[in-house]
Amino acid sequence: MASQEPLLLTPGPLTTSRRVRAAMSRDWGSRDQDFIELNADIRRRLVGLIDGGDAFTAIPLQGSGSFIVEATLGTLVPKTGKLLVMNNGAYGARMMTMARYHGRDCVSIDGPEDQPNDVDALAAALRDDPAISHVAAVYCETTSGILNDIESMAKAVAAHGRSFMIDAMSAFGALPLSAKDIAFDAVMASSNKCLEGVPGMGFALVRKSVIAQAQGNAPALVLDLAEQVKAMDKNGQWRFTPPTHVMAAFREAMIAHEEEGGVAGRGARYRENCAILCDGMAKLGFTQLLPPALQAPIIVTFKEPDDPAFEFNRFYDGLRARGFAIYPGKLTVAPSFRIGCIGHLGADEMHAALAAVRDVMSDMGLKLAA
Amino acid sequence: MASQEPLLLTPGPLTTSRRVRAAMSRDWGSRDQDFIELNADIRRRLVGLIDGGDAFTAIPLQGSGSFIVEATLGTLVPKTGKLLVMNNGAYGARMMTMARYHGRDCVSIDGPEDQPNDVDALAAALRDDPAISHVAAVYCETTSGILNDIESMAKAVAAHGRSFMIDAMSAFGALPLSAKDIAFDAVMASSNKCLEGVPGMGFALVRKSVIAQAQGNAPALVLDLAEQVKAMDKNGQWRFTPPTHVMAAFREAMIAHEEEGGVAGRGARYRENCAILCDGMAKLGFTQLLPPALQAPIIVTFKEPDDPAFEFNRFYDGLRARGFAIYPGKLTVAPSFRIGCIGHLGADEMHAALAAVRDVMSDMGLKLAA
Repeated sequence: MASQEPLLLTPGPLTTSRRVRAAMSRDWGSRDQDFIELNADIRRRLVGLIDGGDAFTAIPLQGSGSFIVEATLGTLVPKTGKLLVMNNGAYGARMMTMARYHGRDCVSIDGPEDQPNDVDALAAALRDDPAISHVAAVYCETTSGILNDIESMAKAVAAHGRSFMIDAMSAFGALPLSAKDIAFDAVMASSNKCLEGVPGMGFALVRKSVIAQAQGNAPALVLDLAEQVKAMDKNGQWRFTPPTHVMAAFREAMIAHEEEGGVAGRGARYRENCAILCDGMAKLGFTQLLPPALQAPIIVTFKEPDDPAFEFNRFYDGLRARGFAIYPGKLTVAPSFRIGCIGHLGADEMHAALAAVRDVMSDMGLKLAA
Repeated sequence: MASQEPLLLTPGPLTTSRRVRAAMSRDWGSRDQDFIELNADIRRRLVGLIDGGDAFTAIPLQGSGSFIVEATLGTLVPKTGKLLVMNNGAYGARMMTMARYHGRDCVSIDGPEDQPNDVDALAAALRDDPAISHVAAVYCETTSGILNDIESMAKAVAAHGRSFMIDAMSAFGALPLSAKDIAFDAVMASSNKCLEGVPGMGFALVRKSVIAQAQGNAPALVLDLAEQVKAMDKNGQWRFTPPTHVMAAFREAMIAHEEEGGVAGRGARYRENCAILCDGMAKLGFTQLLPPALQAPIIVTFKEPDDPAFEFNRFYDGLRARGFAIYPGKLTVAPSFRIGCIGHLGADEMHAALAAVRDVMSDMGLKLAA
């Protein structure tokens, strides 16, 4: 099985623990009290992770991360609203596509993939265009692995009295995000990133006063988070069949997250993974796209070596045969590939991955540095 | 654990086999060749189940059954189209709600919950209203458990040259549905009904010539099946993170379905379950809502006994304590409850459930028949 089941050095789905997967070994009735309690426990824990207190509610939704992002944008931005998207990668661009599907007025501030969102440009846009009602930004843009300055953007949006929504997909649970420090109305993330559950559900943490006024906006019944939370608050049940096994795994994953020391503990392990990876790859002669200050400890983009012997598919297959799945690049500007440092992985696995990279380079006839 | 994990006598999620759940014990890279092959295998098998040959394609989607129903309606009915919904229960009514969310022109033919859809009324509506472009109907309306006459409706729709879409959610895999016998453009179902997988994905089987012309209709990016299938046909991958573990369980479930003798074998087991249940409940003095000819072997609605000692919550809790989860009624017309006969259950489990019902009745002081 070892060669069949690789360690996943990707932005997700990720390698999960045996303990999390074992939680999927039983069935649950979706309207049974046991499941109602499991669901309520997850919602409480999620609100706790952002220090949301009584001001925020957790709204889980079936599907991948993009489902909860689209549901949140679609539910919170009214027909008369205008959305500004801070765009420096594929996930920012995708939010623009979603807003166009919904027929919403939308604009974006576009920046290069290796630069964080331009906070000054944001402030200027808000000053110049009073029609902008909502701003959406991506915490860690996994296109490149870059860290955007969520805190400064939140301040600018708050100063202009607009509503701020954060796509925290690949950062949530590993990078700080407290409602006490950062002003936002909604945060979106999913089960299968830094919380290390299995894929199949996403969630939004939304300010209660905001979701209460968001009736009648959503472009689709299943994506209507105002209805989703109204129904769930009423009887503790999902409107439509929940992914029960995925939820059971997610609760186990949240308990493990807490035991590891929450956001601080999880973040520390990922930072160590990232440091080992970046250091080791540099020693092998690879160049990182981003300088350390902009690099989130989530996924690292490396430039393809300027060597005719390098071919991504052979590199991928060589690593895959040694038990590691990496990720192709998503940059529009340069040939690259990505290696993730999140999931149920630690120093040992990162060192093993580096050994495999060295091995594959040798097989491919790639020149090793130093 | 026995009292914690009940047998699920519900319309889903259902009791699954240990073998299906065991398939969730490993991780999958969603863009890895192993998963691409697993996904392709599932799509091939699904098309095979409707004898779809080269004319149909299988489009899987993240989420519950309602997600794939809404995605199919939203993608296939164009902005200039008009939808007619055959409505005799909550799932027909839900399709009307969805069409209204999408801003589509829609009408319904409403009938009582204990009567099948009126085929003559359908033919008359199609004759009188040339604007109707699409008709949607529910194969087995789980609100009551009634079997609608899909074959006659398909003939009427084909005779008038309109497009027919079938919500086959709770019937697919257990009741006959062949493209050779029944004219339709789309069928929707999900992983966790008669195919006995775990919840978290739905799928539509859509005529290729129809989905090829369905660009630009969908109300949301994540629900756009035209884009979903275009991307998947291109590289075998999902556009957005798939529920990998749910898919692995679903493939195992489809293999088990084939081994049981496909639709015929699965249907035979459910018919036996249903016969044991109906017969046993009648002997205990319960009255079924539907006559046998209208009763699908999926879920059975029983009227609440006309006895002041009966209280649904006590009845539910009593059965639950004995290891069986049943379902509340969904009828608008009469107090009722439902017991499902689908899932990984056979004659032994149905007899055990009946024994539990007798036991609970005795505890509640309910008069036993005969």
